[in-house]
Amino acid sequence: MKRLRFGFSGAAAGGAIFDIIRQEGPVSRAQLGRLMSLSKSTVSFHVDRLLKVGIIEEEALQTDTGPGRRSLLRFAADRGTVVGIDLGATSVDVAVCNLEATVLESHSEPLEISRGPTVVLQRTYEIVEQLLNKMEKTPHDLTGIGIGLPGPVNRTLGSVVSPPIMPGWDRYPVRDEIKAHFGVPCFVDNDVNVMALGEARVGSARDSGSFLFVKIGTGIGAGVIIDGEVYRGFKGSAGDIGHIGIDGETTRCFCGNRGCLEIVAGGGAIGRKGRELAATGASPALAATARRLAQENPPREITAVEVGHAAAQGDTAALELVIESGRHVGSVLAKLVNFFNPEMIVLGGGTVNIGDPFLAAIREMVIRRSTQLATVDLVIRRSAFGGQIGMVGAASMVVDELYSLQRVTEMIRDFEG
Amino acid sequence: MKRLRFGFSGAAAGGAIFDIIRQEGPVSRAQLGRLMSLSKSTVSFHVDRLLKVGIIEEEALQTDTGPGRRSLLRFAADRGTVVGIDLGATSVDVAVCNLEATVLESHSEPLEISRGPTVVLQRTYEIVEQLLNKMEKTPHDLTGIGIGLPGPVNRTLGSVVSPPIMPGWDRYPVRDEIKAHFGVPCFVDNDVNVMALGEARVGSARDSGSFLFVKIGTGIGAGVIIDGEVYRGFKGSAGDIGHIGIDGETTRCFCGNRGCLEIVAGGGAIGRKGRELAATGASPALAATARRLAQENPPREITAVEVGHAAAQGDTAALELVIESGRHVGSVLAKLVNFFNPEMIVLGGGTVNIGDPFLAAIREMVIRRSTQLATVDLVIRRSAFGGQIGMVGAASMVVDELYSLQRVTEMIRDFEG
Repeated sequence: MKRLRFGFSGAAAGGAIFDIIRQEGPVSRAQLGRLMSLSKSTVSFHVDRLLKVGIIEEEALQTDTGPGRRSLLRFAADRGTVVGIDLGATSVDVAVCNLEATVLESHSEPLEISRGPTVVLQRTYEIVEQLLNKMEKTPHDLTGIGIGLPGPVNRTLGSVVSPPIMPGWDRYPVRDEIKAHFGVPCFVDNDVNVMALGEARVGSARDSGSFLFVKIGTGIGAGVIIDGEVYRGFKGSAGDIGHIGIDGETTRCFCGNRGCLEIVAGGGAIGRKGRELAATGASPALAATARRLAQENPPREITAVEVGHAAAQGDTAALELVIESGRHVGSVLAKLVNFFNPEMIVLGGGTVNIGDPFLAAIREMVIRRSTQLATVDLVIRRSAFGGQIGMVGAASMVVDELYSLQRVTEMIRDFEG
Repeated sequence: MKRLRFGFSGAAAGGAIFDIIRQEGPVSRAQLGRLMSLSKSTVSFHVDRLLKVGIIEEEALQTDTGPGRRSLLRFAADRGTVVGIDLGATSVDVAVCNLEATVLESHSEPLEISRGPTVVLQRTYEIVEQLLNKMEKTPHDLTGIGIGLPGPVNRTLGSVVSPPIMPGWDRYPVRDEIKAHFGVPCFVDNDVNVMALGEARVGSARDSGSFLFVKIGTGIGAGVIIDGEVYRGFKGSAGDIGHIGIDGETTRCFCGNRGCLEIVAGGGAIGRKGRELAATGASPALAATARRLAQENPPREITAVEVGHAAAQGDTAALELVIESGRHVGSVLAKLVNFFNPEMIVLGGGTVNIGDPFLAAIREMVIRRSTQLATVDLVIRRSAFGGQIGMVGAASMVVDELYSLQRVTEMIRDFEG
């Protein structure tokens, strides 16, 4: 049951006006009045208050077509600084951003999440502090910190719960730790939800109401956005498409089931099958690559990246593997397109870069196996942000939380009180 | 991008209070104040106005535990009459309801939708008028009419568009025709969306925020409810699960694709496969049934109903067919549960009644092939309303539309103006 529960104070109206300015700005007072069916004087009253609170700013416009002062209003995005962190299985990305999630400074480096929360968070703190130093800022200048974690997140606890790949992290109080360390508000969510939010706020799907962000890396997961907000489902597990079963596939997945999408067609699976093609000699190119990698110091093994290279060089077996994997992903997405009828599917994660045939196979299956009505205007595209979307999304999450209707209403009330 | 666009007049506040009374009522003024963080005097101001507009009513409470008048407020559901119509492929159901979609009178009869809109609507008008006569009412007493149609509905046009099974109905102005005939507002939607809405408002899923209503009849379709509202998707085709492909199945579907869920496991498919079991003799029980039905006047053929009977009597082949069909449905629902993580799945449509093994097979596959987190508290149940949910849902749609926040706000404004 949908519920409307809020007091109709003037502060709430001011909050709603701020929302419009943040999302649609720069806008004039006259546009605001039209958009919200409010009188000029009511708009002016609220705008003046928001200017005093300091969360919007005014930009004078030179005009030669009439008398009187004209100006545009916009979110005061440079009056705050947020940090967005994307913790992956084997890397950390940190960005310092303004309140529109525009990246001002950033740093990425390899970091094994399996080293546990103490080591990983310690190194992350150092990176944040180095970036702030570079900008001649200190943690006191921060408005908030957001972090995406590669496992199931309980947002009430502010930690990951029963993660399959993160030894030592189960129920570790990530949010409270970061909050205590820097003394600013911290927000955590699952990495794919954070990426989807980034695409919705500043990425490819800015103008889409409802879309899917699908991350294809070692594993596969999706973030579901409905009307611009993350849809989480009843228990917070919405978008967990990596464990959708592929009929007829029997490979055992770490989840206990067989034939899950990610164990059949994720980046890890493509690497594993590539190693098999090298071992059996079915792929001459991969067999040669395997010999070369074994000579490196330290020796490496074939991953999805090498399979993509071999396919691009015309190795038939590697190309077939890439196409077959794309078709498995596309076959699952086709079912979800029939069900969910999204406006867009944004594909992210490292594995989407293994070559155009992968993306083409995904597209082909979605178009072939979904209804015509659901695909006629469907856009399927790679994330324009690439690897940055995680940290940008984490920064967007902080701004969404700190400048929600409720919090802005409280800011206005506190300012008056 | 989510947008908040409304004026913050007192009328809108009154509308929001009405919403709470309609959804949570009966409630006291004190409860309203607590729920909405409003002062006693503000609540009283709005409540008095709603009482004058006549859309809520007051019920005095006898109390011996304190001084002063106490009363409860509730939606004035008996001050209006709505008609809900469920047009199926081969039947029509009509209900006359109060504004809470409580059925006061109803009538169902066979009616082939293939006879075209003129014949079908003419007969439907007669049924409505007979029901109203019986209640000593006339069309002048009606508040509005809602109708669910068994095809893709364009709600802007108020008609079905390119329906696969409804010759003569393509773009026929159903809504405007009914509106002109009775002189009252009319609303149309796809039958499965209407049923899902009925479950959300007065059925099994009253207390669930997000759930699926799955109709398994000749075809298969789903209505998706998110936060109590029908989710339609980008092009209005959300929930079209009947054309999700079953990997490895090759039966040609009327949509042009192969192996669609409904052509493999819908009621029509179960009947078709049952006739094959009878013809080959693989099912002795169905072979006997086929001979008996051929003697009837007019002669009939085996449908899903007879397959269910044979299964219940212990016929192995019929039982296997029922279980296999349930597993196909369950396998698709398992994928959707992983993706959507609903709180509940309500199963409706005639085919869910072919026997407990069908439902058990659906449940088994959902539990087996979805993640544990998504199924641990998932409820899968048959619709408690059975065949009535379509007409009840159509009546609910009318009330939702006519008593929306916006319309109630306008009512309050018009009352004052």
